[in-house]
Formats: sequence, structure tokens, C-alpha cells
Amino acid sequence: MSKESSSLLQTRREGRVLIVSIKNPPYNLLTGDILLGLARILRSLDVRDTGAVVLASAISDVFISHYSVDEILEFGELLPPFLAANTHPWMLRGLLAVETGLSYLGLRPLLRMTPLKGLAHLNGYAECAHLLRSIPQVTVAAVNGRAFGGGCELALSCDFRVMVDTPPEGTADSRGCGIGQPEIVLGLIPGGGGTQMLTRMLGPAQALELCLEGTLISGEEALKYGLITKLVSREQLMPEAMTIAERMARRNPAAVAAIKDCVHTGGSSPLAVGIRREQGGFGTSALVPEAANAMTKYLSGIDELLGPKSNLADFQSWKDGTAVDFTPGSARKLQASKKQV
Amino acid sequence: MSKESSSLLQTRREGRVLIVSIKNPPYNLLTGDILLGLARILRSLDVRDTGAVVLASAISDVFISHYSVDEILEFGELLPPFLAANTHPWMLRGLLAVETGLSYLGLRPLLRMTPLKGLAHLNGYAECAHLLRSIPQVTVAAVNGRAFGGGCELALSCDFRVMVDTPPEGTADSRGCGIGQPEIVLGLIPGGGGTQMLTRMLGPAQALELCLEGTLISGEEALKYGLITKLVSREQLMPEAMTIAERMARRNPAAVAAIKDCVHTGGSSPLAVGIRREQGGFGTSALVPEAANAMTKYLSGIDELLGPKSNLADFQSWKDGTAVDFTPGSARKLQASKKQV
Amino acid sequence: MSKESSSLLQTRREGRVLIVSIKNPPYNLLTGDILLGLARILRSLDVRDTGAVVLASAISDVFISHYSVDEILEFGELLPPFLAANTHPWMLRGLLAVETGLSYLGLRPLLRMTPLKGLAHLNGYAECAHLLRSIPQVTVAAVNGRAFGGGCELALSCDFRVMVDTPPEGTADSRGCGIGQPEIVLGLIPGGGGTQMLTRMLGPAQALELCLEGTLISGEEALKYGLITKLVSREQLMPEAMTIAERMARRNPAAVAAIKDCVHTGGSSPLAVGIRREQGGFGTSALVPEAANAMTKYLSGIDELLGPKSNLADFQSWKDGTAVDFTPGSARKLQASKKQV
Repeated sequence: MSKESSSLLQTRREGRVLIVSIKNPPYNLLTGDILLGLARILRSLDVRDTGAVVLASAISDVFISHYSVDEILEFGELLPPFLAANTHPWMLRGLLAVETGLSYLGLRPLLRMTPLKGLAHLNGYAECAHLLRSIPQVTVAAVNGRAFGGGCELALSCDFRVMVDTPPEGTADSRGCGIGQPEIVLGLIPGGGGTQMLTRMLGPAQALELCLEGTLISGEEALKYGLITKLVSREQLMPEAMTIAERMARRNPAAVAAIKDCVHTGGSSPLAVGIRREQGGFGTSALVPEAANAMTKYLSGIDELLGPKSNLADFQSWKDGTAVDFTPGSARKLQASKKQV
Repeated sequence: MSKESSSLLQTRREGRVLIVSIKNPPYNLLTGDILLGLARILRSLDVRDTGAVVLASAISDVFISHYSVDEILEFGELLPPFLAANTHPWMLRGLLAVETGLSYLGLRPLLRMTPLKGLAHLNGYAECAHLLRSIPQVTVAAVNGRAFGGGCELALSCDFRVMVDTPPEGTADSRGCGIGQPEIVLGLIPGGGGTQMLTRMLGPAQALELCLEGTLISGEEALKYGLITKLVSREQLMPEAMTIAERMARRNPAAVAAIKDCVHTGGSSPLAVGIRREQGGFGTSALVPEAANAMTKYLSGIDELLGPKSNLADFQSWKDGTAVDFTPGSARKLQASKKQV
Repeated sequence: MSKESSSLLQTRREGRVLIVSIKNPPYNLLTGDILLGLARILRSLDVRDTGAVVLASAISDVFISHYSVDEILEFGELLPPFLAANTHPWMLRGLLAVETGLSYLGLRPLLRMTPLKGLAHLNGYAECAHLLRSIPQVTVAAVNGRAFGGGCELALSCDFRVMVDTPPEGTADSRGCGIGQPEIVLGLIPGGGGTQMLTRMLGPAQALELCLEGTLISGEEALKYGLITKLVSREQLMPEAMTIAERMARRNPAAVAAIKDCVHTGGSSPLAVGIRREQGGFGTSALVPEAANAMTKYLSGIDELLGPKSNLADFQSWKDGTAVDFTPGSARKLQASKKQV
């Protein structure tokens, strides 16, 4: 991790939950360095230690204001003006694909020192968002204030979003802690997946309206739209994010990874392709020994859960993940201890 | 149909509607045999006799509790432990594709006698769901109680879902007749299309939350989410399902098949691909002689329907499907009778 | 433009907004000629003069009743009966692809004189809808009354939809100014993208229900569903449509085109494909000199906008598009004038 990014990201562990806080005062602007550091942290996680990640802000009352406009301005200087005027999206897609290829060869750090660094930053954002959407750990964004542009996209790439219900003190407007993609007002469009996540979450009509208007919506509206999972008071933000993260950290990581893959990749593919993808994910999670343990335990108590005297309170321990231990390796340990007895 | 499945499925006909009831006491667990039988019934339907199918439960207060966990446990024993631990979803997708190929050669019944039968069951589920989503008959699920896991997926694969609004007597919790995908609590994920249908119906954010939490939602919530078409009292369940089915049985089967295909396959493809798919479906339905009859009749009365004295009550017989006869072959008969006169 | 289409379409300009009104009394039925004329107008637009298009009706109290049933009836006579009875959608998709190819060679006007003209009309609709969804101008439908079938599809292909909240005088039923796809009642399915737009906007469950039932929904319901952007009184229809269009006409056209492409094409592709598409669109809009100007101006005032004394009122001029001039070429003029000083 570069010197800069290490101080821009603070990590803290509570049990099987890792809390990553972004700290780039005063406005918590997102930068290429922050995303590089975040990607390194996400890639280094081990399912045996970490079952969930909470993504938070170390700046009070601000989640992430937006992506650094200075860096976008530099990106705009990528090409000389006479070339820039004739650039079509497919040319840039080609350049970005080349950059992705070079990054596989480990050349991204070199590219980041050339005028092409804008491409590296753009791909760096996409990789970080992809990691959030694909790691076997559940990710929870704790949104303590405004999440505009790149901040909105980072939150939307997490699995769950808990958001404060009140604007920061001293600001009257509820959009002081709003969420949205206002890039259009600078003549830009979202670049970290905003158009894609909004279209899939809300459909093309609402996505077009939000992106073309640059609307910033309040937490309350975001909850109504289904853009956030939960709206809580400022005091309840971290406790609530931690409660979800702790429950999710008890899930079978193979199943978590499979669900995330099925929803994001399968769910955006033609139906028959998505169904096959789900079958593969179902298979890998069913082959995990801990899942076999859970099924055996469930079958032994099926009459209590489904019978005429069924009590959904019994189901609560299953839902909380306390009925069985899904930590990888626990099934073998359980079997070994049984043998000793 | 195997001896087992024939007793697991009861069929009854009312006019052009076929009612298929699943009966596997006490919890109406779904099994490979039931799905095999259901697929056979769906494949044997003739548009001239059958215009709609109602999928119901023969067990009171339970639609389908879930897929048989015993069979899933067997699936988990598909591979020896040392292989299972290193299985990636793409390996399973490959095996499943091979199984699909073998089934075209008529080898599925043989496979179902080997340890590979788990693959045959998984593909069997997908085929049954695909039939529900593609046959030229409209399918209506009459959900009389809980529809968890595989039961939820079967209901979501139908075109319409009518659900009871009250939990079974003696159970306080409304989730006693809830719907959802709780596979995650056993360390599993949905395997019959649940992640795919929920993502497409609700978007990735809600789909992730429901699948990662294993949430069971009440009928009322399901209606709000748009997961079910109608919420009715226990007495009104079958009458309401039949009313919809009878109206739908009067539709042009070519148009029904085209709409189902356009929505499911076209609607999950890139837009330009989906548009072309719709054009093809539009063409085939417009070429049906019964559609030509209907258009001619409509044109002769267009001023009553669209003019200043238009009365939408006149439109009701069109909406009910009683204004024209779309039964395949009826146009030829009509023409013949006209000639005789 | 053919003699017919020139009188069927009226155009009027207000500043950078072009208003196109369809006039085909008495019911404003859509025809191949109208769509041909509309496509020609849309293709001829220049971003330097036109920033937004309002699509309106020149018939009072009727937006577009539906597509001409006479033309669809002719389409149904495309093939001799013995061929029609055995037509599969893929055959028609093949014929339509050939027609698309011939149209590239400029042969569509010829085809429109043969019995194959139905194919030309169907592809003509798709091209017109594609233009509405891809031109760098924002399109706003001003829906002053019923928009059924092809009228609904044309409105759904626009970026924004403003609709009147009251039925025409003398009609009691609110569906007098409703919206929907009732093709099924004539044994048909939507052919101008209705199944595709509804599935993407509402998900497969609601899309199936609306298309299989042929439901016509009121403006109020349409707003609740998210099918329309705004519901206004009859007097406020054009003023409101113009307000949106004028604001949108001040956007960066490169960004508008990119957002429309990302939402429609990217948003219906597998997520990774869509993300790459967005990156390309982000790049082209960031390379526009006007965007660079806007970013520079924003950076100079960032503390006022994001700081503790931030006032979202300051943000309003950015949202209105009055803070910077995005008209193509304006950045160069600005630079030239600075040099002179």
C-alpha cells in the first residue's frame, strides 16, 4: 500500500467483522489511491477470519462527498484536444481493455505515473466495486452523510446500506445527507457503475431521470426507492450496521459468494444463462460440509418447524445463524470431536 | 409417469382450464418425482383443449413447504469430499450441461439411478420452471399457505400468483403462509431460479437482502413488493384463481406464448436483442387467422370504442375475451359456416 | 418526407427545444408514414441548435390512440395462409434482419411498395424508438390523453413522460386518458418495444400481468408504477413539458447521449459489459472542453458548496444548467474571448 493510502484508510476488527473507514478530510473525496488501498484490503481477506466488512467514513457527517474532481479534470487531459474532439466511446473502451490487460501483467503502478493514469483510475474504480460485489464476505455501507457521485456508487456496490435519517447539525436541507449521481451538472456521467446499478435497481425510467436531472435524494426517499436497506438515527448507525454485519458473518461464505454472483452477474444475463449460473452456485454451496451438517440438523427437527405446532420463534436461531456454525473448517472439527467422544 | 409421481399429482379439468394439485403429505415437500410428473403434464397439453393451468396444493393450508432437504443432502454427496472441497461453480455448470445433453438422448431416467441423480434433479427443476414460463397456456399458482424455497420458486415461475391473506388457523404468525427463499439458513442458495426471478422482479438490492437474510415475507408484504398478483381470503382462493384462468384461457395461445417469451427471454437480453424477439412474436401472433378476425371486428366498431361517446364498458367484452373466439381453428370454422350461409 | 407525412407532423421551435406534434385525426392513429417522418426529423437534429425534443399530439384530448389496425391487418396478410400457419418467430426475425440489411442499402422505400411492407413498418417503428432512446437530445412526451398500444410504446421510448391527470371532458372513466398495451384483446402482442420497456421498467411479473390482461391504467396508477415522470393538470401539460425540456436542453449533449446509451444498452447487458460501456461514455463526456470548464469553475467554489456553511440553493444554478454553458463550441468561444481581453 502506498504511503498515502495507508493513512487514508483505517481498519479495525470486531470479531469476524472488519470495519474499514475512509479518511480524506475535509470532504472525504474519493481518489485513485483510496480505491487502490481498499482493493488491496478486500483482496487480502480470509473467510476463516472475516465474514463481513463494514465500509464507513472517518469524517463526521460526511460519507463520501464525491470522487476527486481534480483527478477527473486530469483524465480529461488524457488526449490532445484535436483527438479528444473525435473520440467515440468504443475507442475509450478499447484503451480501457488494454489497460486491464496491462494490469494483469502488473504494470498498473507504472501506468499510474504516465498521462494514461486516468484510465488506470477508472479501471481501478471498477475493480474495487467488482470486489465489493463478489467477495465471499457480506459488505455493509454505513452512510453517515452525503454520498454523491462516486460515493453513491461505492455505497450501491455494497450488499447492504444503512443510512442516517437526519441531516448534519446546522444544515437545514435533508439533502445535506442525501445520495445521488449529480455528475451531469458538470457535463459528466457516473463512471463507477452508477448508471448500471441504478438501472438495475430502479429500471430505466427512474435511472434516466435521476442521472439526467442529477437529483440528490434524501435518506427517506432513498428508502422508499429501495436504494438503501435501512434508515436509522445518527446514534444507531454503527450499531445497526454492526448487527447486520455480525449476523451476515455467520453465513456460509460459499453461499454468500454464490448469491452475490447469481444476483449481479446471473441476474444481468439472459435468463437461461442466469439459471445455469445459479445451479452452479447451488451446487458448490451444497457440497460444503457445513451445509450438510446444517441440513442434517434441520431434518432432525423438521416437525417442530413445519408441523401444526410450528413456532417461527424456533426459526429465529436459524435466521440469526446461531443454530449451526458455518465457519469454514468447523464441520471437520465437529466430526473429529465426535469421533474422540 | 412413474408410479410415485402419478399419486403425487392430481389433475382435474374445468372447461379449458386444467387444475394440477400437488399432494405430498404432510408438508408438501417438492421432489424430483413431482417435478418429473409435472413436466410431463405440461409437455402433453394441447392448445385446442387447454388454455390455462392452475397449479394448486392438495394439502390444506400448505402450498409447498420447500424442496425435499433429503434429496439436497444426497446431492451434496455427489462428489467425494476431497473433490467437493475444490469444486468451482463452472465445473458444476459443465457437469449440468453434460446432463442436459444426455437427457436429450433420453438418458435422464438412467442417470436418476446413479449417484449423479442430483444433477438430473437440478436440471429437472429448471426444465419444469422453463415449461411454466414458456407454454402457450397461462399458468396461475393458487398459493394456499407457505411457499418457501422451492415452493416460492415454483410459484414465481407461474404467470400469475393468487395468495391467501390469512395464516392457517391456530398459527399466530402471518409468515405461516409466507413466501421467500430461506435456503441461506441451511448454508445453501436457491437452486430453482429464485435468485434470478427475484433479481428481475425486485432488482439486485432487494434480491440480495431477501436471499442473504433468508427473509420470509407475509402475503401482504408480497403484494406490496409485487411478488404476488392478488391477495384474497381463504374461501376466495380457488374461485379467484379460476376466474383469472378462465379469462386467460380465452386468449390467443400464439400471443400468450409470445408475450411469455418476450418478457422472460427477450426482457433479460440486451435491449436490441429483446426488441427483435418481440418483433418475431408480434409477427407470429398477427399471422394467426383468429387475430385477423378480431382486427376486422374491432375496425367495424372502432368509432364506438374510440369516439367522443366512447364507453369503456364496451371494451369489457374485449378484455374478457368474449368478444371474439381465439380457440385455434375457430377462424376456419367461422369462415366455413359463412360460406354455407 | 413523403407528402402524407409532412402534413401528419407539425414542428415548432422554442429556443433550443423542438416541439413535434402528431396530427392524424380523428384518433391520432400511428402509421408507418408518421414514424418515417418522425425518424427523418430526429435524424436531422443538430446538437448546436436543438437540445431537447417535446413529442406532443395536435389532437385535443388524445395522445395516440394506438397503431393503425388497418396496417397490422395488412401485415397479417404478409404470407399465404399455408405458410402463415407454420411460421415460427425465428423465421420472422430472419426476414426482419434481411429487411434491416436492405434498408441500409436504401431499399426500404421500394420494399414499402411490396407485400413485404409490413416488415418495413415493423422495423421502421423499432428504428424510430431507437432514435428516441439514443439521440443526444433529451426527449419529453407530453401525453394529453389516451396512449394505448403503439402510443404507449412511443411515450415509453421518450426519456421523460408528462401526463394529464384528468380524463377528457364528457368521459367519466379515468382510462379515457389511460396508458397501456391492450394488443392481447385483438390476439396480438406489442410490436414496438412494449414488452421490453415494461419488463425493464416494472419487472417480469407486472409486465406479464399488464400485457396478458391488456390492462389500461390511469395516469395516477401510471405515476405510482413509475411509468410516467409527472402528472399535471391539462393546463400545466405543455408548460411543464417545456420546463423540463428547456432545463435538459442546457445539458452537455455528449453526456446526455452517454447516459441514454448506458441506461438502455448498458443496463440491459451483463453487468461487466454495462460497466465497460459506462466507462467509455464517462470518458467521452469528460473529454468535452465544456465539461473541463465546468469542473474548473466547480473546483473554484467547492468550499461554498461542500463546506460547513454549504447552501444547496447555490447548487440550484448547477442543477438548472445555468451555471455553465454546455452548448458545443461555447468553450472555445469563451477561451477566445479571454485571449482578446
